Amino acid sequence: MKRNVLTVPVRKVHGAASEAVQDFVAVEEPLEIRIGDRPLSITMRTPGHDLELAAGFLFGEGILGGAADIERLDAEGGNRVTVTLGSRVEVDNARLQRNFYMSSSCGVCGKASIDAVHATGCTMLPRDGFVVAAQFVHGLPAKLRESQAVFDRTGGLHAAALFDGDGSLRSVREDVGRHNAVDKVIGAEVLAGRTPLARTILLVSGRASFELVQKAAMAGIPVLAAVGAPSSLAVDLAQRFQMTLLGFVRDGRFNIYSGSWRVQ
Amino acid sequence: MKRNVLTVPVRKVHGAASEAVQDFVAVEEPLEIRIGDRPLSITMRTPGHDLELAAGFLFGEGILGGAADIERLDAEGGNRVTVTLGSRVEVDNARLQRNFYMSSSCGVCGKASIDAVHATGCTMLPRDGFVVAAQFVHGLPAKLRESQAVFDRTGGLHAAALFDGDGSLRSVREDVGRHNAVDKVIGAEVLAGRTPLARTILLVSGRASFELVQKAAMAGIPVLAAVGAPSSLAVDLAQRFQMTLLGFVRDGRFNIYSGSWRVQ
Repeated sequence: MKRNVLTVPVRKVHGAASEAVQDFVAVEEPLEIRIGDRPLSITMRTPGHDLELAAGFLFGEGILGGAADIERLDAEGGNRVTVTLGSRVEVDNARLQRNFYMSSSCGVCGKASIDAVHATGCTMLPRDGFVVAAQFVHGLPAKLRESQAVFDRTGGLHAAALFDGDGSLRSVREDVGRHNAVDKVIGAEVLAGRTPLARTILLVSGRASFELVQKAAMAGIPVLAAVGAPSSLAVDLAQRFQMTLLGFVRDGRFNIYSGSWRVQ
Repeated sequence: MKRNVLTVPVRKVHGAASEAVQDFVAVEEPLEIRIGDRPLSITMRTPGHDLELAAGFLFGEGILGGAADIERLDAEGGNRVTVTLGSRVEVDNARLQRNFYMSSSCGVCGKASIDAVHATGCTMLPRDGFVVAAQFVHGLPAKLRESQAVFDRTGGLHAAALFDGDGSLRSVREDVGRHNAVDKVIGAEVLAGRTPLARTILLVSGRASFELVQKAAMAGIPVLAAVGAPSSLAVDLAQRFQMTLLGFVRDGRFNIYSGSWRVQ
């Protein structure tokens, strides 16, 4: 088991004074994700929950549709996960290419990026009557901080947490990369056969980018709440898939950018 | 000229009350970087300073060594930059591959990642007597905030700022991606023929990852100061190249993780 926190010698400066101490830093190491013998991606991540990270990443890219598509998952040498897909799973090499180069014949633009998500099979989030109370949303950041183990020691990690509609925490994951934290949370649900994640709320500690909305939409998560700001394309993508997107969720306030009908 | 801020309709919730307002979000759009007719990378970025972004990205990857290697830089269609390299510049296709898949025969690990930076021609930062005063470091975040134009409106942007040793600000760039903000700052210096950036300080608004230390090291920047935390691999890489790495630069404090001899 690789460590996710290391101790390093640090000189702490306060005003004009300083002292030498030992302090914690979050571990960052590369993880290679392979499909069979084909290297697909290298991501810089905090070690831990690597199988979930690989499963969540491939699910978010539309390469696998669920646990049933995975024949084997092997962690090798500490920094590599090899995914063996079932023999009946067709990997569209052109799609793999498209996922990393979202260019299209109409040019590169926000709309083409959104169309690319649609092309991976992502569907509209349902208007199934699922709602969350504003009071519940106000309480999410405190629940996240309570369950963040590593952040308190290093101050250096992004977190993602998945909640059920009744407010119970399903899981929380921390990582130097916020997309990795989301992949780990969603990957665990993929491996447990619990996708799509209807009637859940995903909370992220930082900002809401296009990429995070994409991952949530692929997993069928109807509510994405970010402690930080959303980007323009995150708002566009959330609107396109009828996702509820909340930003600046902190200090008893938040903004609703999309899907306000799910907030009571 | 594409906009870097958009206005969107937002429902602001405060406690149990809410109101509908117009608010600002930072623009996020894909940018495709091509070498000739070969698509190399797509990055989600905030529009603006796209030529600098492309130049800084290619410089950081070791693909071009300076402005003299560029024959033409063309922005097309708003979201694409095509770089035409000089006829005498050899592009090592294996190197391009290596930059995106840092796997090596010894396996994927932090050391292999550091060796990969070394292999791109990155050299040790000199012990040339360049020092910065602690008081100067304490003042950096205030200087950055004063010059951040978009952040105040959207709360959603990372920033990077380059300072001379005498404290004067060379440039500041904002972007939804912190690596893009750094590429834009460094790319402007590359295009002006001012690399390596000896005797400068790079300040970043967020955390210091491996990737940011790599970009600073490639540009010859001796001091990298981050408002947030560094990762383990950022510390390792800074030590390897004798860079001064400062973290948690805020509120009259900071931590020195590497190269403390440059701080007075």
